[in-house]
Amino acid sequence: LDEAAMKETERRLGRLTKPPGSLGRLESLAVQLAGIAGATVDRPPRKAVVVMAADHGVCEEGVSAFPQEVTGQMVLNFLAGGAAINVLARQAGAEVVCVDIGVKSEVAHESLLVRKVRAGTANLARGAAMTRDEAARAVEVGIGLAEELAARGIGLLATGEMGIGNTTPSAAMLAVFGELDPAEAVGRGTGLDDEGLRRKYETVKRAIETNRPNRDDVLDVIAKVGGLEIAGLAGLILGAAARGVPVVIDGFISTVAAIAAVRFAPIAREYLIPSHLSEERGHRLALRELGLEPMLNLEMRLGEGTGAALAFPVIDAACNVLSQMATFDSAGISEG
Amino acid sequence: LDEAAMKETERRLGRLTKPPGSLGRLESLAVQLAGIAGATVDRPPRKAVVVMAADHGVCEEGVSAFPQEVTGQMVLNFLAGGAAINVLARQAGAEVVCVDIGVKSEVAHESLLVRKVRAGTANLARGAAMTRDEAARAVEVGIGLAEELAARGIGLLATGEMGIGNTTPSAAMLAVFGELDPAEAVGRGTGLDDEGLRRKYETVKRAIETNRPNRDDVLDVIAKVGGLEIAGLAGLILGAAARGVPVVIDGFISTVAAIAAVRFAPIAREYLIPSHLSEERGHRLALRELGLEPMLNLEMRLGEGTGAALAFPVIDAACNVLSQMATFDSAGISEG
Repeated sequence: LDEAAMKETERRLGRLTKPPGSLGRLESLAVQLAGIAGATVDRPPRKAVVVMAADHGVCEEGVSAFPQEVTGQMVLNFLAGGAAINVLARQAGAEVVCVDIGVKSEVAHESLLVRKVRAGTANLARGAAMTRDEAARAVEVGIGLAEELAARGIGLLATGEMGIGNTTPSAAMLAVFGELDPAEAVGRGTGLDDEGLRRKYETVKRAIETNRPNRDDVLDVIAKVGGLEIAGLAGLILGAAARGVPVVIDGFISTVAAIAAVRFAPIAREYLIPSHLSEERGHRLALRELGLEPMLNLEMRLGEGTGAALAFPVIDAACNVLSQMATFDSAGISEG
Repeated sequence: LDEAAMKETERRLGRLTKPPGSLGRLESLAVQLAGIAGATVDRPPRKAVVVMAADHGVCEEGVSAFPQEVTGQMVLNFLAGGAAINVLARQAGAEVVCVDIGVKSEVAHESLLVRKVRAGTANLARGAAMTRDEAARAVEVGIGLAEELAARGIGLLATGEMGIGNTTPSAAMLAVFGELDPAEAVGRGTGLDDEGLRRKYETVKRAIETNRPNRDDVLDVIAKVGGLEIAGLAGLILGAAARGVPVVIDGFISTVAAIAAVRFAPIAREYLIPSHLSEERGHRLALRELGLEPMLNLEMRLGEGTGAALAFPVIDAACNVLSQMATFDSAGISEG
């Protein structure tokens, strides 16, 4: 990150009519954005939420409260503008970019980016979710997309996802990367009951025992117990970091993707902006793995990028105070 | 609150394309707003941040990092649009209403509401901050203002304040209402060092010992160890509740004002919407006193209503999902 730009932004923040540091995270965000951009960022950036959609063979183990066909149905809902992420992105002035990176069904729509690596993963409880080559291609989809969006002038990305069953591979990946007991990583997803939760825990445990992923080999972890949209989001973060674009991280699944990205390239961590703390059990541990503190606590557990979209106004505020607030000198105010 | 409107809103939320309850606080906010309004609120309300300004005689004890004249200087900054609250309110589409309820100096500006009860409080470490009659009049200023704003069509209020030294009376009021050791209620305010913090603690302790406020008599507590802007905000909340207008509560000082309002009229609690958790030491305890959970954790400690303004988009989102999201039926999506 650009130290000089960060220092200059700190200096500007220190002249604004407020006690030093009293805008808290708004100030640290402003400094981070400057470090990434190489100059003070005093106008809200153009924003996009990337929603990567894919299916999961592990659904046949009964690990989700919703049937698998909902993935494709929700993709159409995103494209029609009727999902929660559409509403929240619209309110925040962000566009929604929807990507089919591995939906089982064929979804056709003029606004859908079709980058399908395969039509859903295999059941990770019985073998690898995908091949190593497929995992690499899914990561590359994300890298390429970040480059396209950066070239189009997007200055701030947010991660979103849709994939019935995708908290199961996320929990497995978190357990492997964090060397955790799967029980700490497995949660109720969209609304499992106690019996479903127990089944999901057994499934994650079996997936790790069966596949024995090598935690020091990120592609191996993704291929064996991951998901296509998770791989795609990890790639999106890597591509964004490479292009100097910060990325707002949504909930549990997105945070696991961010862990994978940071394992690929530790510098990617400097480009991450946390958003909310999800209700999904493993999210707190996933954030801790990255050393990130959430800014919002809204008891949400929807995914799609909804928590990230609600953090956009905080980031806009960090930019707006820099250009719109008076200084002690300009306002004639005594300093402490 | 209107139970039928709340049930109807719950029913509508249950039909939207998301797992039941997965929008967390957005859903509970939507239900609360419906209960207050007596009907589903599916359009963002017109918003205003009321910034009440007043001075504090206790400043002569050296309890603030800033000189007292800053209160009046900042009032001019609010009116010129250069303070943090102006920037954040503008971004959220809210107006800023600035009230001189007790600034020591004469401030003149066509947009300033002058409702001065007295030119700053007396030093509460040496006697009562104000008379009981003055405390009552300050509360009435707030009640009257809420009525005026409701009549102008404002559907959502936020509390803000400016008053160099005002975390000292707030800490004293919190200690009295919550029967706390003053050490738990006293914090660094705008940036006291350890020596200043010790002095502030001694001041609050002395104020309570000298004045012996009766914790069961709200006006007595305000008059003896309170502040004019704190009294005014308590009144604003009472007036808002009486007119069916919800109020977003900012940080430490605003939350103490909310405690006073709820001691006056317990029903007022149902009209409160918490916003952020401030860095000021006593804020967590003040929120706990009201049983409120903050939605934002931005490490801010500025006041002015800045934390409340940053919560406005969350409330707008709660309204927008109701009018803009598709239902399971309309989108043809399978339910779990």
